[in-house]
Amino acid sequence: MSAGDYGDAFPNSRKVYVKGRAGEVAVAVPMREIALSGGEPSLRVYDTSGPRDVDVRQGLPLARRNWVTGRGDVIEGPRQLVQTTWAREMPPAIAERTRLALKATPGRRVTQLHYARTGVVTPEVEYIALREGLDAEFVRSEIARGRAIIPANINHPELEPMIIGRNFLVKINANIGNSAVTSSIEEEVEKLRWATLWGADTVMDLSTGRDIHETREWILRNAHVPIGTVPIYQALERVGGRPENLTWEVYRDTLIEQAEQGVDYFTVHAGVLLRYIPMTARRVTGIVSRGGSIMAKWCLSHHKESFLYTHFREICEIMAAYDVSFSLGDGLRPGSIADANDEAQFAELKTQGELTTIAWEYDVQVMNEGPGHVPMHLIRENMEKQLDWCQEAPFYTLGPLTTDIAPGYDHITSAIGAAMIGWYGTAMLCYVTPKEHLGLPNKDDVKAGVIAYKIAAHAADLAKGHPRAQAWDDALSKARFEFRWRDQFNLALDPVTAHAYHDETLPAEGAKVAHFCSMCGPKFCSMEITNQVREYAAAQGMAPEAAVESGMAEKAAEFLKGREIYVAKKD
Amino acid sequence: MSAGDYGDAFPNSRKVYVKGRAGEVAVAVPMREIALSGGEPSLRVYDTSGPRDVDVRQGLPLARRNWVTGRGDVIEGPRQLVQTTWAREMPPAIAERTRLALKATPGRRVTQLHYARTGVVTPEVEYIALREGLDAEFVRSEIARGRAIIPANINHPELEPMIIGRNFLVKINANIGNSAVTSSIEEEVEKLRWATLWGADTVMDLSTGRDIHETREWILRNAHVPIGTVPIYQALERVGGRPENLTWEVYRDTLIEQAEQGVDYFTVHAGVLLRYIPMTARRVTGIVSRGGSIMAKWCLSHHKESFLYTHFREICEIMAAYDVSFSLGDGLRPGSIADANDEAQFAELKTQGELTTIAWEYDVQVMNEGPGHVPMHLIRENMEKQLDWCQEAPFYTLGPLTTDIAPGYDHITSAIGAAMIGWYGTAMLCYVTPKEHLGLPNKDDVKAGVIAYKIAAHAADLAKGHPRAQAWDDALSKARFEFRWRDQFNLALDPVTAHAYHDETLPAEGAKVAHFCSMCGPKFCSMEITNQVREYAAAQGMAPEAAVESGMAEKAAEFLKGREIYVAKKD
Repeated sequence: MSAGDYGDAFPNSRKVYVKGRAGEVAVAVPMREIALSGGEPSLRVYDTSGPRDVDVRQGLPLARRNWVTGRGDVIEGPRQLVQTTWAREMPPAIAERTRLALKATPGRRVTQLHYARTGVVTPEVEYIALREGLDAEFVRSEIARGRAIIPANINHPELEPMIIGRNFLVKINANIGNSAVTSSIEEEVEKLRWATLWGADTVMDLSTGRDIHETREWILRNAHVPIGTVPIYQALERVGGRPENLTWEVYRDTLIEQAEQGVDYFTVHAGVLLRYIPMTARRVTGIVSRGGSIMAKWCLSHHKESFLYTHFREICEIMAAYDVSFSLGDGLRPGSIADANDEAQFAELKTQGELTTIAWEYDVQVMNEGPGHVPMHLIRENMEKQLDWCQEAPFYTLGPLTTDIAPGYDHITSAIGAAMIGWYGTAMLCYVTPKEHLGLPNKDDVKAGVIAYKIAAHAADLAKGHPRAQAWDDALSKARFEFRWRDQFNLALDPVTAHAYHDETLPAEGAKVAHFCSMCGPKFCSMEITNQVREYAAAQGMAPEAAVESGMAEKAAEFLKGREIYVAKKD
Repeated sequence: MSAGDYGDAFPNSRKVYVKGRAGEVAVAVPMREIALSGGEPSLRVYDTSGPRDVDVRQGLPLARRNWVTGRGDVIEGPRQLVQTTWAREMPPAIAERTRLALKATPGRRVTQLHYARTGVVTPEVEYIALREGLDAEFVRSEIARGRAIIPANINHPELEPMIIGRNFLVKINANIGNSAVTSSIEEEVEKLRWATLWGADTVMDLSTGRDIHETREWILRNAHVPIGTVPIYQALERVGGRPENLTWEVYRDTLIEQAEQGVDYFTVHAGVLLRYIPMTARRVTGIVSRGGSIMAKWCLSHHKESFLYTHFREICEIMAAYDVSFSLGDGLRPGSIADANDEAQFAELKTQGELTTIAWEYDVQVMNEGPGHVPMHLIRENMEKQLDWCQEAPFYTLGPLTTDIAPGYDHITSAIGAAMIGWYGTAMLCYVTPKEHLGLPNKDDVKAGVIAYKIAAHAADLAKGHPRAQAWDDALSKARFEFRWRDQFNLALDPVTAHAYHDETLPAEGAKVAHFCSMCGPKFCSMEITNQVREYAAAQGMAPEAAVESGMAEKAAEFLKGREIYVAKKD
C-alpha cells in the first residue's frame, strides 16, 4: 500500500468537508466519514490525511494563501536566504513556489497569538473550531491565553490548520528525516504522506544529511500538516559539523531561511545553560538530545553562555515576522530511567518557563518540549511543574518511555507514558517507533509508531472527557456486540489489519455475518447469549431490568423450550 | 525459532540455579544470567523459561513431588474421575503419571495458606524467597495475610513455584487453548513453552473444544508454571453445550477431575448473582465473559441463584484438599469503555469480596479477577474498591484496555491500562494479544502479547520501587551510553529483534562497536559528545561538576584543539 491509497486504507470511508465562514473567508474542514450498516448513522472522525490525489511534483493547493494576504499585514519579496546547491533536479512547480516569500510588514506581528489577543477570530481559528467541534471564541481565548497554539507559518499556504493545547484533542507528531547514513528525499516525502494517512497531526523533519534544504522544500510544498524542524542541525551542517564553530549569525540566517520556506515551528534548545551542563556529568546517560549536546559542546568550548539564550529576543523578532511557533527544546531531558526528574532536567524546564514569558512579549506562540525516559510514578511531576513554571503553555513530550529494557518495542514502552501524560494535560505526543535506539524507521515502523500514538492520544482524550472522543469507542463496541464485523473493521484505527487478523482464522465470507468468532466458537459466544437475554426481556414486554425481578419461574421454562443457544442468522 | 531454542532467544545468557534450603529440603531456583562485556558484571534476571531440553512426550522432572509427600498430610490413590476418551494416543510416560492422584488426608488442609498461617516456611516459600530476593519470613507472612498466593496444586510436581501478590514482582498470565474452531494439542503445548520462554509467569488453558482433558493433561505434565482453567467450560461440554443443563454435580465432578490432574487455579464465576444480571441489560456490550454469560443463562433459565454461589463452601472443601487456588472470576466485567465501572461490575466485585472471606475460612488461597475495558481515569477506582472490598487479596486483571477503537492493536491499548493498574497494586496481569476480538493468537501473537505485558509489568515494578527492578534498566542504559551494542541487544526483553532492527540499517560488523548509530550518524551523536565532555573533565583531574564552574576559558581552547567531535574507536 502506498500513502496515496486512502480508499484501501479506510474501506467504506469517504472524505467530506464541513463548511464554515470567518467573516469574508470560506473554510472547508476535512473529516473522514465512516459509513456503517444495520441502519447505524455514519461516524465522522478527525481527518489528518490531507489531499490524497495530488502529484508530489506539483505540490498541494494553496488554500490558505488568501487568508494570510487578506489580513493586509504582510509584504512579499524574493527570498533572502537560499542556502542550496539544488544538487538534485527540483520539479518546476515546486521551484516556482520558492522564489518569493511573505514577511510581516515592518512593525507588524503576524502571529495567531497577536490576532487572538486583539480579539480577531482568524480563518485559522474558525477552521479549528469546526475541526474540533468547539466554539470559535473559545478557541481564540485559549490561544490568547497562551494555552494553545496554531503552528501556521505565513509561508505555508498548503496548511490545514490544527491546534495544540490541552483543552483540545491530544495531537501526535511523527518524526521523519534523512541522516548522513541513509534515505532519500522521495522516501521522506512518502513518509510524510504515509504518517499523516494514519493520523500524524504534525511532522518534524529532522534531516541531518545532504540536501537538507531541498528535502525540506519538497516536504513543505506537500505538507498539509504543520512542519517542525530543529534549525541547529542545519546550522551545524553549515559549519562543517563542528559545534564549536557555530555562531549566532549562522544560526540566525538558518532561522530566516527556514522561516521563508514555511516551517511552522522550530525546536530551540535555548534552555541549555552553561551552568546546567555539569549537572549531567554523573548521569547514567548524560545528554541524549542532539540539539542539547551540540549546545553543551559549544558552551563548554567557548566557556560562554549559549547564543540561543543570549540572542533569544532577536529570535523572537524573527519568529514574530513569519508566525513560526517555538517548541522550546528540552536538551537535558533524561535518556534513561535512572536520570528522570533530575536537577539538570528541571533546571532547564524552569528556564523554558522564563523563555516562554519572553516569547509572549513578542506575541510569539510557544510550546515546551518534555521527556524522554520517565518511570510511571515520576510522570505527573513533569506535568505539574511544566504547567506551573511555563504558565500553562502547551506541553509536547517524547513518550515518555516507562522502562529502558525493551529496545525494539519502544513504541509500547512509550505509549504507556504518552497516554498517561496526555491524560495529565500534555497537548502533543511525539511518537516513538519500534526502531528507536536501534535504527531509522521504515514505512512499517512509521505506521506502527503512529498507530501506537493514536491509541495513546485517544485514550487520553477519553480520560479527559473530550466530548467527541467516546462516540468512536461506542460505535465500534456496538458494532462488535451486534456482530457487524465489517463495521468493526472499518471503525478500527487500522481497518485492513483488523480485517486480515480476523480472516487468518475465519476467512470464509459467511464468517463476516456470523454471530460468533474464532475465540469461542458458536456454542460459547457470550455476546450472543447476552443478546438472547436482552431479546427475551423485550419479547416479554418488560424493561430489561424488570425481566428477572418480576419473578418468572414459569416463563423460564418457555425460554428453555423456545431458544437455541446459538441461532445462526444470515441476514 | 521454536520454544526450545533458549540459546537462540537469549544470546550470551545462561541458566543458573540459586541454591537454598528449607529445613531438610534443598531448592534450586532458576535465574537467567546475562553475560556482559567491558568488565561489567553479569546481570541475573527472573527466569520463567523452565527446563528447555526435555521431550514433551516424557514430561518435566518431578522436582516438587517430595516436598509435597514429605509433609505427611496427603494420601495417594487412583484418580477418581477420568472423563476422557483418550481419542488420541497419549505418550506412555505421560499416561503413567495419570493413574494416581494425591489428596489431603481426611481432615487436613494442604494449602500454602494453611501452612503459612501455622507458621511453617514451606520449600515453596523458600524457593520464592530466593526467586524474588526477599526474606522467607516475609513471604510467609504475606501468604498468611491473604495478600499473596502460591498457586501450587499438590498434583503438580512439575511446578517451579511462583508468587502472586502486590509486594512481589508483578506477574503476567498468557492464555492458550484450542476452541471448537481450530488448533491442536501439540500446538497448545508448544504455545505454553513459547509463552514461558518469553516471560509468561502462569498460563491459563482455556480450551473449549474436543480432547479438552487430554490437552490439559499434556500441558500440565509439561508445565513448570502454574496452570489455570475455567472449569465451567468443560462442564458445559459435558452437558452438550447447553448452559441450562448444567448441574452442581456435573460441575463438582469437573472440579475434582481437574484438581486430580494438577490444575493450580480455577476461575470460578461465583459472583454472578441472579439479581445482578438485569443490571447488564442496558449495557453497550452486555456480558462479555464466557463464564459469566453461561452462568447468567443458567440463572435466567432456572430462575435460581447460581449453583456456584449456593455451593461455594463445598467448592472450598474441594480446593482445600488439593491446594487449588481461587481466581474469583469477574463474569460481569465491562466489555467496552461505555460499560466500565458500572453497577453490575461493582456489585459482582463486592460479592467477590464476600466469597474471598469464605474461602479464607477454609484456608483456600484466593485472587480476584478484574476488568476488562476501562478508560484511564476510571482505573484507580477498580484497584481501590478491590483492595477495600476483597481485603487486599491479589488482584488479577485483563488489561484493562483503555480504548475500544484499535482492534489488531489491543496488546497496546491494554498494556497502557495494565501498566497503570499494576503500579496501583494489581499483582498479575492477564495478557491480551493483537488478535483479541478478532481471532485466535498464533505464535507471533503470543510473543507480542507476552512482550507487551512484560513491559507493562516491569514498568509497574519500577514505579512501585521493587528493589531489583531498576538494575536491569540501568545495565541496559549504561550499555547503550557506552556503545556496547551487543550488550544492549542481549539485555533487551527480545534480544534477537533488537539486534535485527539495528542491522536493518547498519548491518556491518563494525557498526556493533561504532560510537554512533543510524539515527544521527557519526557527526551528530549526542552520547558521544557527552562522553567527550565527561572525559575532558576527568582528564583535567576535576570532578565533573567542577569542570565548568572552576572557570576555564583558556582550557576551552585546548579542548578545541585536541579533540574531534567524532573519534572512531574500533577496540
